[in-house]
Amino acid sequence: MHNSFSEQNIGFSAKNKEKTDKNNQPESFLGQNSSTQDLLDKSHTKQSIKKKRILTGDRPSGKLHLGHYVGSLQNRVKMQNSHEQYVMIADLQSLTDESFKSENILEIMKDYISVGIDPEKTTFLLQSQINSLYELTFYYMNLVTLGRLERNPTIKEEILQKGYKDSIKAGFLCYPVSQSADITGIQADVVPAGKDQIPMIEQTNEIVRKFSQQYNSNCLREAEILLSDQPKLVGIDGKSKASKSLNNAIYLSDNEKTLREKVFSMYTDPDHIHVHQPGKIEGNVVFSYLDSFYEDKEHLSELKENYKKGGLGDIKIKQILFESLRAFLTPIQNIRLQLKDEDMISILKNGTYNANIEYEKTIQEVRKSIGIYSFD
Amino acid sequence: MHNSFSEQNIGFSAKNKEKTDKNNQPESFLGQNSSTQDLLDKSHTKQSIKKKRILTGDRPSGKLHLGHYVGSLQNRVKMQNSHEQYVMIADLQSLTDESFKSENILEIMKDYISVGIDPEKTTFLLQSQINSLYELTFYYMNLVTLGRLERNPTIKEEILQKGYKDSIKAGFLCYPVSQSADITGIQADVVPAGKDQIPMIEQTNEIVRKFSQQYNSNCLREAEILLSDQPKLVGIDGKSKASKSLNNAIYLSDNEKTLREKVFSMYTDPDHIHVHQPGKIEGNVVFSYLDSFYEDKEHLSELKENYKKGGLGDIKIKQILFESLRAFLTPIQNIRLQLKDEDMISILKNGTYNANIEYEKTIQEVRKSIGIYSFD
Repeated sequence: MHNSFSEQNIGFSAKNKEKTDKNNQPESFLGQNSSTQDLLDKSHTKQSIKKKRILTGDRPSGKLHLGHYVGSLQNRVKMQNSHEQYVMIADLQSLTDESFKSENILEIMKDYISVGIDPEKTTFLLQSQINSLYELTFYYMNLVTLGRLERNPTIKEEILQKGYKDSIKAGFLCYPVSQSADITGIQADVVPAGKDQIPMIEQTNEIVRKFSQQYNSNCLREAEILLSDQPKLVGIDGKSKASKSLNNAIYLSDNEKTLREKVFSMYTDPDHIHVHQPGKIEGNVVFSYLDSFYEDKEHLSELKENYKKGGLGDIKIKQILFESLRAFLTPIQNIRLQLKDEDMISILKNGTYNANIEYEKTIQEVRKSIGIYSFD
Repeated sequence: MHNSFSEQNIGFSAKNKEKTDKNNQPESFLGQNSSTQDLLDKSHTKQSIKKKRILTGDRPSGKLHLGHYVGSLQNRVKMQNSHEQYVMIADLQSLTDESFKSENILEIMKDYISVGIDPEKTTFLLQSQINSLYELTFYYMNLVTLGRLERNPTIKEEILQKGYKDSIKAGFLCYPVSQSADITGIQADVVPAGKDQIPMIEQTNEIVRKFSQQYNSNCLREAEILLSDQPKLVGIDGKSKASKSLNNAIYLSDNEKTLREKVFSMYTDPDHIHVHQPGKIEGNVVFSYLDSFYEDKEHLSELKENYKKGGLGDIKIKQILFESLRAFLTPIQNIRLQLKDEDMISILKNGTYNANIEYEKTIQEVRKSIGIYSFD
């Protein structure tokens, strides 16, 4: 049956707890990222307070890259200490844009674990295996009008891009409804997201209010958006944010040769032709990456001053960035090498099993509120 | 859990088989309906041929009436012999028009059984309890464009009626997709329906073809519409078809007093004031009902001739119709009186359990075709 996950493998994460915990120490593989360490320390002191539930996740559209690390992964490594964290691999969402590949699921799990998202602290779940999501989506569709969905900015942009709405898939139009099911089904208090995702949370909370009013029920809760304070990491071409589809990203799993090639092909300052000339920092991809990954902020300020004055060459700063990223990625990749497919499956299966229990609680309440007949 | 129906009550229908079979003899309660008998005899000879699967059903929006009997119920009593018949109580569809009342489910089951739909020959199922329908609907939404759904004549009419489409619920727009899940999930060969339902079957078969092409799969089959040759039964007011919402229908469960009141208030020929005057047959509700329920067709022709010539009064023909309907309804109501709620629940629960097995086969194939990850 579809959602009948066995509990037989729950032992895995416990067995490997010691190893995983050690690996999660930021000193061992995150370099000297003092801000991450600060936040980890702070969050540890909060553990006695009742933790809020957080839902986050990714579409399995490919391996994760440094843009994901800066934008979300590093935050998850922190949040798992201060929050009850659920990380969803949103394979159903991938169906709407036809980017779906089930083999990406294992790669993403390895990315998660290797950067330090700890299955002892975080529940991983596979969206398609949460049976009640389909049902919740179905019910919520009766609470949302066509006009409201078409006014969603993401949908509006897609309609504009395509020039006409005839080719928009119903599944795409309704995917904010499906996201609302993801969020409300797990009873998330907090959803970390970028500014562009504000309409998605608004749609979710509208559905919650409509449901509460229509069925005179309080079984669903509104969620809060946790806006990221991190700017999006730029792609190596400097043209837009790092992304798989634009082929301008450095992957967590890129080997040394690829890393070197990508760093040395980075867009810098096209007018900075000779070492002695003054160079620009703004729009210079190398400095953007150094801002995110170079730990010694004081030295970084000096480097910037020297670059602006003239006398610091692109090759030199690229070499510094390369070393810095290599130091960051090597321990992550060393962990990744030790990760076995079957263990990734176990972790995801167990997490999905546990998440299903939570979603099942919600759907039971939802059915009762609507008045769905039950044979039991 | 949601779709885990126990098998413990399967004994019910077997235990009552003898009684039910006897009750199903059309002679015992359908009067001398020779055409029904003819068709039953014909269909019996077909039983050695592999039976086609048929899906039909009703929204649980209220008790069933004579319009349902003429339009579908009498056909189901026949089809259950020649086909492998599934009758779905479509409670999810009721959610889209907010007519949903779960208490109607038992009343409709009693209507079904009392007119002779036999749980030994027909599988009854409750739509909301078929888990895979939600999931199938979800997948199919990615195969249908917004433009295609908006061109559906039923939806178009609703949009016209409301004057603007902003208030159309997404669930209403997408309900042809959900119907496609009902039909394809059970692998129906045949769907009996009126002409107005042709677009629904076309949408279903379009989804099947799109699925087959996109996923290179042949796990879904196209369905054939079986157009009803019965004209729709008119309401007692003569203005439109018999319907619950227009309050112009005679219910299968109406008592003698109500039946008499309704028959004697029927619209006839407003110009036929005196008995001796000639009367009109066209648009005369009493003769419409006699066409459907008066067995002696020869005598009916004579009555019509006399009415047209003049000399046959409205009270006389109403009395004939009343007697005729009373003779038709009394044995049905006698059976209904014997039906127990718990037995209706058992029949529906067992049928739903068995139907779930069939739907589950389909969803497994669908998941495999799409490439949905499985932990098993």
